[in-house]
Parts: sequence; structure tokens; C-alpha cells
Amino acid sequence: MTTARTLEELVTPAGLVDVDRMSANLDRMAGYTREKGLQLRPHIKTHKIPQLAKEQLTRGAAGITAATLHEAHVMAAVCDDILIAYPPVGRARIERTMQLPPHVRVTVGLDSADALRALSAGAQKAGRTVGVYIEMDVGMRRVGVPATPEIVTLARQACAAPNIDYRGVMFYPGHIRQNVNQQAASLRKLTSDLAERIDALRDGGLAPAVVSGGSTPAAFASHDVSGLTEIRPGTYIFNDRTTAEIGACSADDCAYTVLATVVSTAVGGQAVTDAGSKALGREPLRGTDGEGFGALLDYPEVTVRAMSEEHGTLDLSRTSWQPRVGDIVRIVPNHVCYSVNLQPCLWAIQGDRVLDRWTVAARGWSA
Amino acid sequence: MTTARTLEELVTPAGLVDVDRMSANLDRMAGYTREKGLQLRPHIKTHKIPQLAKEQLTRGAAGITAATLHEAHVMAAVCDDILIAYPPVGRARIERTMQLPPHVRVTVGLDSADALRALSAGAQKAGRTVGVYIEMDVGMRRVGVPATPEIVTLARQACAAPNIDYRGVMFYPGHIRQNVNQQAASLRKLTSDLAERIDALRDGGLAPAVVSGGSTPAAFASHDVSGLTEIRPGTYIFNDRTTAEIGACSADDCAYTVLATVVSTAVGGQAVTDAGSKALGREPLRGTDGEGFGALLDYPEVTVRAMSEEHGTLDLSRTSWQPRVGDIVRIVPNHVCYSVNLQPCLWAIQGDRVLDRWTVAARGWSA
Repeated sequence: MTTARTLEELVTPAGLVDVDRMSANLDRMAGYTREKGLQLRPHIKTHKIPQLAKEQLTRGAAGITAATLHEAHVMAAVCDDILIAYPPVGRARIERTMQLPPHVRVTVGLDSADALRALSAGAQKAGRTVGVYIEMDVGMRRVGVPATPEIVTLARQACAAPNIDYRGVMFYPGHIRQNVNQQAASLRKLTSDLAERIDALRDGGLAPAVVSGGSTPAAFASHDVSGLTEIRPGTYIFNDRTTAEIGACSADDCAYTVLATVVSTAVGGQAVTDAGSKALGREPLRGTDGEGFGALLDYPEVTVRAMSEEHGTLDLSRTSWQPRVGDIVRIVPNHVCYSVNLQPCLWAIQGDRVLDRWTVAARGWSA
Repeated sequence: MTTARTLEELVTPAGLVDVDRMSANLDRMAGYTREKGLQLRPHIKTHKIPQLAKEQLTRGAAGITAATLHEAHVMAAVCDDILIAYPPVGRARIERTMQLPPHVRVTVGLDSADALRALSAGAQKAGRTVGVYIEMDVGMRRVGVPATPEIVTLARQACAAPNIDYRGVMFYPGHIRQNVNQQAASLRKLTSDLAERIDALRDGGLAPAVVSGGSTPAAFASHDVSGLTEIRPGTYIFNDRTTAEIGACSADDCAYTVLATVVSTAVGGQAVTDAGSKALGREPLRGTDGEGFGALLDYPEVTVRAMSEEHGTLDLSRTSWQPRVGDIVRIVPNHVCYSVNLQPCLWAIQGDRVLDRWTVAARGWSA
């Protein structure tokens, strides 16, 4: 699988996964959802690796969530129950949906009658039935139907559409990102908004079999959101600087780091590593104050304060550590899903030992 | 090569290259450097596509510039004169440098005695000679030796190092990004700083055969920087929203766009396309005011005001255009080098016709 045996032998920058931390993260979420009677449908956009989807399914995930059709196709090799949590708009997207292997139970999230009509037409042409979740906006204001009457109308249209199986409703609470200790009010608002919608659907004879929500920041509070039956966290498998800073995990739960080499200290007062924006992503911290694009695993007071494509400049103003050219460091990025997508492969490690090389098979798209 | 024949058949998001615009961009830079007697060594990190490096070499480029060893290895198939404009730090990086095909004339930019020593040791072990440019900081404060005496010392060490061929000096003026009409003072300062360093090197018997600088924003003013013998622009092949906004090209010179589909208009006052941060990158405009992460080719008043990984929210506040679900649009990103690195392939187009599919072969790294 790999010729590298230790971190020192890897070409940097390189994405590393601490398998012990990852397993603990997977066990924790699986245990939580089992205990609370919630269905877990992890979003695999975080890792994009079929082997890791298998780890999630083995631990009891009901299926997986994907954002792109390429992700869905790659994951079809290991999973037969796939939610494509993305509007099925565009001829190519509909065609690729219908080309998923026939044994895969496909569900698609959508928020428009146009998308529903095209999906139904495509499903009829392909001679298969496709499930639908109606996507609702619950305050993020990105996609999703905001108003209850329109949600009911679209659900009714889904029930009537040929080759469409209305399976429930979904939402993405991406606006609930604050520190876990400050989430209570947001979650109360979410519960009451959900209740109103679920009641209206039930009154219309459209009670949703599934109410799907949830992302990592508030995942462990999902049992407080009454009505919820399924959650779709992604980040929890690895966690990142953001989830640690908002208290959704501890620093020791961060399983993913970018291995980097200090390549220059020529300019005084700083050190430059080879992990720049093409390895970390220019992703801000969210839901919390804090500067920089990542922090060092072993010197958390050191952040990446500036980046070019292949350069990451370390802020040394709060550390007594004195980096030298050639030192290797491990960086916890602000947003792990973004950083993983920049890696051709991830290296599974245990301590300093390299155990395996995983291709990030579902990144990009097949064209 | 490809089954898609028109834009409508492509899976979105997709990176498009208008080949007529690209050819004009290539011709313009080749003509300029020829006329001014400057050596052109384009940075291929912008496109990462061997076929396009060939287009640059055919038009007279002396060689190419690469940032990563993977780029260098991929480009060795089409180019026998490669500058790796990146400190050769770390065992893997040195080994991969020495593994470049023997017929390739390799030059490496470096800024430390440590890096020089390791490169020299690696070259001796491999039994090859490697060229060196001493990298100087001229104000960007990223990498490069800032002070003239240290530049002279490192150049002297390069001359003395076994299997090292001291070939000159280089710098990256990444801090000169302002509007081209406001660049004169920065360029005067650059010229005088360069003169002082070149004089000091000459006085030490270390006159640089090559003085290598230049990036796209000020490329066409390179002849005003006396002492310069070589430039390394990258972005010019495609240009982007930044180069257009600072006046380094016209809007009609932008050859690269991201094709995207409007997937949702459910939330009022906006439209969401499928080109998010995983297609455009969260790159700010630089050297100019301006919001957003890109602008529409056909409706330049419409910018991408917010992004998630697979969602780009269009700001419709300044347009009379009323997008509908299913519309396709073309987005000029703020930073083309970053967006291209997110694409598995680029589609060569002429008008609405798809001519070819180019794999972005040098993205990522071989590990």
C-alpha cells in the first residue's frame, strides 16, 4: 500500500489521520445516536473515502449523505442507501442520479417544483423510484423552502409525482454554529419552528416519515430537538479547529492534521511552512473569535497567520518555540472538510507510524 | 477525448478555458518579452497542464517555473529546463528533485544555508549538478533573504558548494498588487533595491547571470525594472477577476470561467449556484476594493457574495437579471490559480463548443 513507514518519510504537505482518535469519534457519535434512538446518516463530504464510509456503516449508520453525484457514485461501492442532499438540477445531475446502481436506495433533497418535475421525469425515463426529502430553510438562508405553506405544497406535489417516493423533510442548521454552551436558545427556536411545520404537514396528511437535520456543531444536542429522527453530521469523524474552539469536541478529538515542513525562516519573526492555501484552505474560524487558518497540534499557541498557495506563515508572537528550517509540524485546520478535499490521499497513522494510504476517491467530480 | 459537445452537456461546476482568449494572452506576453529582450519562464502553477506548458514553450518561453516537485515531474515530460521556485527543504523534496529525468536542467530557488547544504549533499549523492537562484525578499516578507550582506554570503556559499551551479538571483514581488496606474513608485523602489544588491554581488565577484522576478500584476512594466533579465508570470495565461480589476488586463482577457448551474431560488432575493468554495476558492480580491469571490462573465454586476462548499450565493442587488432554477452561468473567479487547482480537468471551449478535455495533471502531489 505504501512505502513510507514514518512521518519523516512523507512528502509534505500531507493529510494525516490519527486512527485511534478517529475511531473514538466514530464510536462516540454511533453510541450517542443509538442511545437516543436517532438515525445516523453521516455526510461523507468530510472524508470522501469509501473505506471510512464503511467504518461508519459498520457502526450502525443507516446510510450515508452525499453532496455531489460523484460522491454518490464512489460511495455506491460500499453503501446501498444514499441521500443526495443537494438539489437535483441540471440534465447531467439527473442523468447521473439515475445511473446509480439499481440496488442503491436513492433519496434526493430538493426545494423547488422545477427540480421535482425534472427528477420525476428522469425517474420515469429510467424506470426507477427515487425518494425525496423536502428541504426546508430553518434560518440559514441558503437553500430550502422557508415558508410552511410552500413546504406543504411541495410535499403534496412530491406525493403526487410519478416515480417519486415522498420520504420526509430535511434541513441544514448551518447558522447554529455558536459555542455549544450558547446553543440552547437557537435549539429552542429550531424545535418550535420544526413543530409548526411538522404539524402542518401532518394536518395535510403528509406526516414526514423522516425529519432529517443536524450537523456536527450541535449534534450531541439533537435529542433536545423534538421531532428530529435523523442527523447528518460530517465533521465529527475528524473534527477540526472550529469544532474544538466552539466546544463541540476537545482538542484531543482532532484526528486530522496537515503535516508540514518549515521551509524558511529567512524573514525575521516568523517561520514559513509548505502548508499554504492549497493544503489548508482559506477558511475562517466560525462561531468563535480567533485568528488564523489553523493552529499547530503540538504548539496550539502558534497559528497560521497568512498563506499563499504553497506557503503558510506561522505567527510566533505567543510562543517560546523556535522553529528551524527542516522542522516538521502538524497543523489542525479551521475546516477539515475543505482541507481534505485538497489532498489526493490521506495517511492513516498511529503515533508516528504510517499504517495506510487512503485515496480521497470522491473528491472532484467525474466528467 | 470527450463526449460533451456543448456547455449544456457538462456536469457543473466545470472549469472552462476560452482557447481564443488564452492564445491571445499567451501571444501578448510572448511578444512583450521578446520585444523587451526579457527571458520568459512562466509559472505553470496557474494551469498545471502539460499541454498548456507546451503552448508557452512553443511561443518562446526559455523554460518553466514550478512550485511543487509534483509539478516539476509532470512538466518534465514536455520541458527540459525547470526552475523549482521553492526552498528544497526536507528529505523527500531533495530526493524528488534528484529523481527528475537527467536531461532536465534543474534550477532551485533557496534562501538558507541549511537548504543549500542539503541540496548540495543530495546532488553529490545523485551525481548531478543542480542550479541555484538565491531567493531575495524585496518587500513581500514571505520567503527570501532580506539583507544584502546575507544575500552575498549565500551566493558565495552557492558558488563553493559541490555539485551546485550558482545561476543568479530571484525574487517574488507579491506585494506589488495595486492598480497598474499606481505601480510606478513601487517599481522605482524595486529597481533601486535591486541595483544595490546586484552591485554588491558584482563587487563580490558574484554577478548574477540571471535576475528573475515578475508576476502578472506588473509584468508589462518589467522593462522599467532595470537589471531584470527574466520574469515568471503565471496568471497571465488565463487572467482572473483580480487582474482585470487592477487593470493588468481587460475583462475580455479573462479566459477561465467556472460553469455553474442555478440550483435554488427558494430563499428570496438571491440565487444559489453549484459553484461554491470547492470550485472557486475563498479567495479575496487583492490590490483593489471589491466584494465577493467572483463575478458573472455575462452579468459582471452580479457577484458571488457567500459560499459553502457546494453552494455559491449570488448577490442580485445590482442587477435586473432574474435567474431561474436550471439557468447556467459562467463565473470569473477572483484567483484563477486557486480555482484551477480544485478542478480535476478543464474544458477547452470556443464559443459554446467544447473542443477538448485537459486533465489538471500536476495538481496535488504524488505520494
